[in-house]
Amino acid sequence: MSKPVFLPACPLPLADYPTVVLAHGGGGKLSKQLVDDVFLAAYPSPELARLHDGAVLDLPNGRLAFSTDSYVITPRFFPGGDIGSLAVYGTVNDLAMCGARPVALSAAFILEEGFPMADLWRIAVSMRDAAAHAGVRIVTGDTKVVERGQADGIFINTTGVGCVPPGIEVAPPRIRPGDAVLISGPIATHGITIMSLRAGLEFETTLQSDSAPLHRLTAALIEALAGDVHVLRDPTRGGVASALNEIAQSAGQGIRIEEAAVPVQDEVRGACEILGFDPLYVANEGKLIAIVAGARAAEALAILRRDPLGAEAAVIGAVVADHPGRVLARSRIGGSRVVDMLSGEQLPRIC
Amino acid sequence: MSKPVFLPACPLPLADYPTVVLAHGGGGKLSKQLVDDVFLAAYPSPELARLHDGAVLDLPNGRLAFSTDSYVITPRFFPGGDIGSLAVYGTVNDLAMCGARPVALSAAFILEEGFPMADLWRIAVSMRDAAAHAGVRIVTGDTKVVERGQADGIFINTTGVGCVPPGIEVAPPRIRPGDAVLISGPIATHGITIMSLRAGLEFETTLQSDSAPLHRLTAALIEALAGDVHVLRDPTRGGVASALNEIAQSAGQGIRIEEAAVPVQDEVRGACEILGFDPLYVANEGKLIAIVAGARAAEALAILRRDPLGAEAAVIGAVVADHPGRVLARSRIGGSRVVDMLSGEQLPRIC
Repeated sequence: MSKPVFLPACPLPLADYPTVVLAHGGGGKLSKQLVDDVFLAAYPSPELARLHDGAVLDLPNGRLAFSTDSYVITPRFFPGGDIGSLAVYGTVNDLAMCGARPVALSAAFILEEGFPMADLWRIAVSMRDAAAHAGVRIVTGDTKVVERGQADGIFINTTGVGCVPPGIEVAPPRIRPGDAVLISGPIATHGITIMSLRAGLEFETTLQSDSAPLHRLTAALIEALAGDVHVLRDPTRGGVASALNEIAQSAGQGIRIEEAAVPVQDEVRGACEILGFDPLYVANEGKLIAIVAGARAAEALAILRRDPLGAEAAVIGAVVADHPGRVLARSRIGGSRVVDMLSGEQLPRIC
Repeated sequence: MSKPVFLPACPLPLADYPTVVLAHGGGGKLSKQLVDDVFLAAYPSPELARLHDGAVLDLPNGRLAFSTDSYVITPRFFPGGDIGSLAVYGTVNDLAMCGARPVALSAAFILEEGFPMADLWRIAVSMRDAAAHAGVRIVTGDTKVVERGQADGIFINTTGVGCVPPGIEVAPPRIRPGDAVLISGPIATHGITIMSLRAGLEFETTLQSDSAPLHRLTAALIEALAGDVHVLRDPTRGGVASALNEIAQSAGQGIRIEEAAVPVQDEVRGACEILGFDPLYVANEGKLIAIVAGARAAEALAILRRDPLGAEAAVIGAVVADHPGRVLARSRIGGSRVVDMLSGEQLPRIC
């Protein structure tokens, strides 16, 4: 289901090293060969090519956004993406949710001895393509190798830096009763795609992860609404429910959502029913929650819908003066229920 | 041998959660409890307390240094430090080697289900103390939990940002024949400490890792010598030999060192002989190589020696016009040998 990717041949002679060996992380010749032949071949940025311990960047004046995430998802290749594209888009999105323009990423790999070199190359190329698509550069990195059995194939950390335009501050303390809560599209798609794969259900469907970079959406909102954008958040682990709870608690405000207004694809809703999940708690990797001044709700919705990634955006609720710190959902038949944070683990290793 | 550390009681009720469980990484209530009770308790920075997806920092104008490293060291507690202090000092040092003043770190944890909570707390406190000692703040983070058997206890990624003063550029292309090569103190101590522990040799000694933050040394050199500081590098994995080779190759210049001038503690030299290692290839975590204009060598040496971390600094060689891209060592008895990069793995998981 995922779109075909042009995968150039791995420049490392796979006959010599079909898999990762410990010395690829030892700091000597083989480490250098891995960096030169795989990572520099995939991301030929001038900063990375200097092979220094770090990168030095010229940034425009202003505030710096800085965000980190490690990615441990299993399976590592899935419809709609892989651990590499997820690692790029996930951190790009975290920067975008700070109101920033993402600029550069670091990429740090923990590899298990014996990891297939061809898979590493496929992931490196996927990260290259994702970085190009998201308009960021991978400028510095690190590789460690641990013994067989001491890690599960590959873990990736990406950390990003970005620029926050002057005067922009998106953060929970800025929300007020009357603000509108928007979602950029149908929820729960990433989590259900991964969970279906693991459960061996593929539903004879076209279900695929929504993993995507959201910086265009956030930039368009900020450009048009400026200070009327109060919060941006991508509801990943824990889903929309946990993200809204964190915002409500952090702001000391109540949030009310209309369940009927929350978009969910039919297939995803069906899978949620089969698997026993509430879509509000399932992870997303290409959706954002925007909380904006109520008077700008229609304008924000139009801006989101103008972009293909926001074509199915919806206003799903509002900030309210009642029940500070809590999230309530009004059901289709009119009753209200408390939407708490996810308690316990729902989907381990979803990102 | 390591100095006693004041370890405040873990604020998480250990009776309820004596070890990490999968839900500590799930994005819900238990994730929040872990972040609140362990990480926010250890690093109460205002940026981290906002619990947003990233931090927003005010930086002075100028260029940004940006560096990442993952830490997988085993054993995770060792004389002179632990995986937490190493993760802070290692990334602080990478920023310092860019000529930067380190400002802020991210900290991302990959935890194995079942990891002792008390060890996690001990590591968090160690990172707090190390960050305070190095003058940096931990401003954003991430926690993932993988199933038992899918990681070795704890892996930590730290990524750092720092400010490079205007006009400062330390990088291999700046070295010239006649430049002096300095080392800030005795080499191979970190690697030999770890290897001795693993081999069950403890030599009835006071051997301990040299892990330390080097930003004071680099700042003092840059303040006094400015543009005459050509390269700074901390010789970690692969040791002094690999670091000098990388510099020589990257610059297209030759480097000559005098073996007799390279400081090595007697105990370390003895352990190297027993274990069969050349100290030039053994990892350091609190030493730097500085390459400076030849005319400033004595001044640079005096500056390093003024600081306790550089008390045993030495001039160990020079950049030469001969053998570009290669490193030669003159032995105590007058002959010369090629000092190549480390080939293969010497000490897996040394950092």
